[in-house]
Amino acid sequence: VRIGNLSKTTGVSVPTIKYYQREGLVPYGEQVRPNQVEYGDEHVHRLRLVRALVDIGHLSIAAAKNVLAAIDEPGRDHFASLGKVLYAVNAATPTEADQDSVDALVAKRGWTVRAGNPSRAALAALLETLAALGRTDVLARLDDYAELAEQLAALDVSQLAGHDQRDDLLETAVVISLLGDALVSLLRKLAQESHAAHRMGS
Amino acid sequence: VRIGNLSKTTGVSVPTIKYYQREGLVPYGEQVRPNQVEYGDEHVHRLRLVRALVDIGHLSIAAAKNVLAAIDEPGRDHFASLGKVLYAVNAATPTEADQDSVDALVAKRGWTVRAGNPSRAALAALLETLAALGRTDVLARLDDYAELAEQLAALDVSQLAGHDQRDDLLETAVVISLLGDALVSLLRKLAQESHAAHRMGS
Repeated sequence: VRIGNLSKTTGVSVPTIKYYQREGLVPYGEQVRPNQVEYGDEHVHRLRLVRALVDIGHLSIAAAKNVLAAIDEPGRDHFASLGKVLYAVNAATPTEADQDSVDALVAKRGWTVRAGNPSRAALAALLETLAALGRTDVLARLDDYAELAEQLAALDVSQLAGHDQRDDLLETAVVISLLGDALVSLLRKLAQESHAAHRMGS
Repeated sequence: VRIGNLSKTTGVSVPTIKYYQREGLVPYGEQVRPNQVEYGDEHVHRLRLVRALVDIGHLSIAAAKNVLAAIDEPGRDHFASLGKVLYAVNAATPTEADQDSVDALVAKRGWTVRAGNPSRAALAALLETLAALGRTDVLARLDDYAELAEQLAALDVSQLAGHDQRDDLLETAVVISLLGDALVSLLRKLAQESHAAHRMGS
């Protein structure tokens, strides 16, 4: 199809599609005649993925580019690629926070997590913020949250089964990681209202 | 303390503090002498809260302002205030998505959720995106995710107990809702790596 149709199908404007192409997020179409460029299903899918990462996952264009580059990069070792892609999702914010409490939690749960996982530093910073805000109640329940997070992760990872083709595996992992956060956040907010309503008896 | 000390204690630069004051996120200090303005613990706490909302909760300045205004607004009915504050956190994005699937889910779970809860529309849009991306695997496990989200919500709401003073209750709810998402997201990413490592046997 032409770019106008691609725009109609995906709801992304033509100038935005061209911007994504210049930024390397979406591949160019195929020049089938001197004045005609054709787009296919892979463009529709890639555009939807970009919008999901940016609109729902709240990734910056630069972060989305890193994630897509990690997906597109050829490589044989699926697990190494998976790590690369998910670390790119979880853009590293260097922090000075003390990681002892995170190390202790990871050890207590028996999790196998590489030292380079950027979530370690981000979690350490978050625990510091919670402490600074006086939220000792949340910190006291950290292990309960970790238990539920572990069950979510098990559910996430079980969905990678059957996605053996590399690109499919990596995209599935990214979508589940980013959109899965949005999904649980929204379900949780609905359930919070329900629980709060019952607790307050109104 | 002077504004310079406030800046040192919180790690927020003086121009940023002044910007937050102009935007109405942080109250002005107390003019104790013609040339001296004093800041207290409530300013330290408010600045930390603003940074948490903006840096960790990824709220825009405008959204953070709405949340804080809802906290600051006087009102007797705690439950109504709670709804207002949490709806402000969960900034409404109007959407055309079909909400039937969300209504069905809410009914199936037996949740009490008002029609005006903005998470309803946001969840409907997210389910559409997942379907458009071909993620039928996630949609098939929606009820499993809802079950875990409900357990998280129960844990969240249980922490409101004992916070009976209005401002304290509302701030606790906001922090748990926003930073609680970040907390579970990070714990989940750590556990995902661990589960993926075990599944892939590396």
